Amino acid sequence: MAAFDDLMRYQRETVALEQVAGRLGWDQETMMPKGAGEQRAEEMAAISTVLHQRRSAAQVGDWLAQIDDGDLPPEAQAQLRLIRRDYDRTTRLPVDLAAELARTRSLAHQRWAEARATEDVAHFLPMLAHMIDLKRQEGAALAAGSGTSPYDALLQDYEPGATSAQLEAMFGALRPRLVALRDACFGASHAPQPLQGQFDEAGQLALSRSLAVAFGYDMARGRIDKAVHPFSSGSGDDVRITTRTNPSDPFNCFYSTIHEVGHAAYEQGINPAYRLTPLGQGVSMGVHESQSRIYENQLGRSAAFTGWLYQQMQAQFGDFGIGNAEAFFGTVNRLQNGYIRTEADEVQYNLHVLLRFDLERQLISGALDAADLEEAWNTRFMADFGFAVDKPSHGCLQDVHWSEGLFGYFPTYSLGNVYAGCLHQALRADLPMLDADLALGNTVAATQWLREKVQQHGGLYAPRQVIENACGQAPSEAPLLDYLEEKFSQIYRL
Amino acid sequence: MAAFDDLMRYQRETVALEQVAGRLGWDQETMMPKGAGEQRAEEMAAISTVLHQRRSAAQVGDWLAQIDDGDLPPEAQAQLRLIRRDYDRTTRLPVDLAAELARTRSLAHQRWAEARATEDVAHFLPMLAHMIDLKRQEGAALAAGSGTSPYDALLQDYEPGATSAQLEAMFGALRPRLVALRDACFGASHAPQPLQGQFDEAGQLALSRSLAVAFGYDMARGRIDKAVHPFSSGSGDDVRITTRTNPSDPFNCFYSTIHEVGHAAYEQGINPAYRLTPLGQGVSMGVHESQSRIYENQLGRSAAFTGWLYQQMQAQFGDFGIGNAEAFFGTVNRLQNGYIRTEADEVQYNLHVLLRFDLERQLISGALDAADLEEAWNTRFMADFGFAVDKPSHGCLQDVHWSEGLFGYFPTYSLGNVYAGCLHQALRADLPMLDADLALGNTVAATQWLREKVQQHGGLYAPRQVIENACGQAPSEAPLLDYLEEKFSQIYRL
Repeated sequence: MAAFDDLMRYQRETVALEQVAGRLGWDQETMMPKGAGEQRAEEMAAISTVLHQRRSAAQVGDWLAQIDDGDLPPEAQAQLRLIRRDYDRTTRLPVDLAAELARTRSLAHQRWAEARATEDVAHFLPMLAHMIDLKRQEGAALAAGSGTSPYDALLQDYEPGATSAQLEAMFGALRPRLVALRDACFGASHAPQPLQGQFDEAGQLALSRSLAVAFGYDMARGRIDKAVHPFSSGSGDDVRITTRTNPSDPFNCFYSTIHEVGHAAYEQGINPAYRLTPLGQGVSMGVHESQSRIYENQLGRSAAFTGWLYQQMQAQFGDFGIGNAEAFFGTVNRLQNGYIRTEADEVQYNLHVLLRFDLERQLISGALDAADLEEAWNTRFMADFGFAVDKPSHGCLQDVHWSEGLFGYFPTYSLGNVYAGCLHQALRADLPMLDADLALGNTVAATQWLREKVQQHGGLYAPRQVIENACGQAPSEAPLLDYLEEKFSQIYRL
Repeated sequence: MAAFDDLMRYQRETVALEQVAGRLGWDQETMMPKGAGEQRAEEMAAISTVLHQRRSAAQVGDWLAQIDDGDLPPEAQAQLRLIRRDYDRTTRLPVDLAAELARTRSLAHQRWAEARATEDVAHFLPMLAHMIDLKRQEGAALAAGSGTSPYDALLQDYEPGATSAQLEAMFGALRPRLVALRDACFGASHAPQPLQGQFDEAGQLALSRSLAVAFGYDMARGRIDKAVHPFSSGSGDDVRITTRTNPSDPFNCFYSTIHEVGHAAYEQGINPAYRLTPLGQGVSMGVHESQSRIYENQLGRSAAFTGWLYQQMQAQFGDFGIGNAEAFFGTVNRLQNGYIRTEADEVQYNLHVLLRFDLERQLISGALDAADLEEAWNTRFMADFGFAVDKPSHGCLQDVHWSEGLFGYFPTYSLGNVYAGCLHQALRADLPMLDADLALGNTVAATQWLREKVQQHGGLYAPRQVIENACGQAPSEAPLLDYLEEKFSQIYRL
């Protein structure tokens, strides 16, 4: 199959260039001199243009037309499935629309940052309205002839195979039990003690490094730097993470690190034979998030593991006013009212996501105008959280996603949590001694299980299929809810 | 001129991609996880392929054919001169030869590193012989029809407009006076005191940072990291340097830093209107080296500036056994026998370069076989330096250049020193108060002069022309020699 070999050679170069572009993004957030922003924008635009040209090249279409997938082994067929999907999506988008989207992304992002800094929603609205219009067009172009809605077409960029209907059903079942659990916790007579005091940066970074290693992050194929926002970047043998520190909130540093290690371990854990091929990356945002969240929450915030962390923090910082490991488990998992999704506790996090999922579907369908977004957000927030948004940066201006046109991204956060719940249930069943390991800071059995069941496959199976294969049953929200109810009933003595 | 505008737009993207490739190189030496080497090689190859395709694209030839340079303003003509030269050189090279050169570079570099580590010249020889053969072919292809020699054709990659004959005449005049000066210094009854003691890394890095700032390095458009070999990388608003530390040799750290700041200041000092265009980089290796060397030597190792450095070192490290600033001036500039070019003192450095220039011309012309290189090197070294090479890593295996096919690069080091001598003479004439400034660690007047006379022009003028414009006369070796003789006569009390 000369055409297949040629296509794969070409594809390998494309993936290598994607890695280069990704590393440029990493550099921008960690190393770039502050005066280099304008020049960097041109550099990013240049490599994006190259990538777009490669992805949409007629030559790719010619190769694809020459290949009979049925003649090939399963892994080659999986490669082709991903290449065909990418080529199809790229070429469905009219060139002018793609250019206008790229231009608007950059402008809207800047406008959003200004609006957020000045608490001025109106400053962002015209650009948001334009972005929504473009995304509707994009969704329509991608959906053309398929019978799916524009929103569902956009969703495929983040979670191939997912549908709004499926997610709605799943999230619909999630919401009432999360609200009930949250209300029960806040109404309980017992409440965990908050963390107090100051924790020096060097100590936080040293311990977060130990945590990364404890969770199996391969430092020979990665590195940890500081950045304003924690993220993971890269695939294969060069997967880097960032973290951040706040003197009064070391948990932010530790659990951001563990979260990013979950993403990074996924990328590092993919079958090395897939390196620099379409199969060589995590299969979807939802499955990615399942890894980061199970590392962070089901493992990292478990009673057993926090027992070990409690000792580590005492060794690093001395006595910090929490009397024992059980109290510390409560402190780590303590529920708190708050406006910000990324700082939300495990029970309330998904309520933040569900709000966005519902609003963004309405924005794309046209049921909600950009002009009415702030009011809709604030009304829904009050209904879900029981207190009022005090300013736009705590409300509809808090997240970057819509300014960058990432409609369809939000639900993958909650889907990832649901998947993490499923995986955790299966993992516990397979590893009865898990807590004994975690109590020693040993995650090897758990991370090996995840590597074998999920991570190694990269893009080989469809997202839902990966989870179903790993768990032996179709994913549902029930295991996540059962886990949360059990855990927080214990902590809040419900 | 639609063709000119289209070409410049295209060129701007190409230059932006070159910056991306350069930053990938920086990352490799400073940040890359050690296990990422193989993957990185593929990433580098992918972006190199893209760049080669862009540089040799028929579309570029079409645009160039449509443009009448005479209709354009001088800066546009200069852009076109550089674009035409690059396109001509790229397209003269047969595709198969270019591919074989790229392949051999990677293999030869690896073989050279192995040979150097094991002191086994024979292990490197077959690959070197193959590389020389390819470079001869490359030189012949580039020279075809022009009447120049293959070596001179290769030289154009580093120093456009230079000829062997010109360099030979210049270097021929350099050698006897350098040898005589060296012998006089070693025969003198007075000799400066060597530096002794240990200097902590944090102190070295802090002081090297102060030195970078003192020499006008713009940290808002750059950064300093540690690397095995000091280098400068990037153009425009993102020009990064590296340095290194050795507890017993802080001068290595300080003067490597100042040297790289010279390179970086050149790139940072180019007219911002040229950013991401062919004019937006240093015009040649020789002119580049003139900046790094005048910063490092004529300014940084001057009696006046070392007086300031002496105080800074005392403030940083306390008393380190050198009694006064005059003695310190001698210590900084002390001549030392040694095998290694990059560690050579100011008097002997060029003797190392001249040796390589003569040998590499013979290798390319065929007058010297790779098999006879070691003997030729050792014989010449004994003749020039008066003592025998003790092992290949101190002799013909010390430099990376030939393994990477960089024939024609070496002479630009000495040419840069000659240029620095010319610029220094002119600068002293224009700035009578220079030493008073330098004695306070103030290089502003000197670096401003260099920025105005040399750096801002980027690629606007031909290399020799830049120096001639700055100095008001054609470059010659005399000012460098006069400067060295005066300085070292003072230090050695000749």
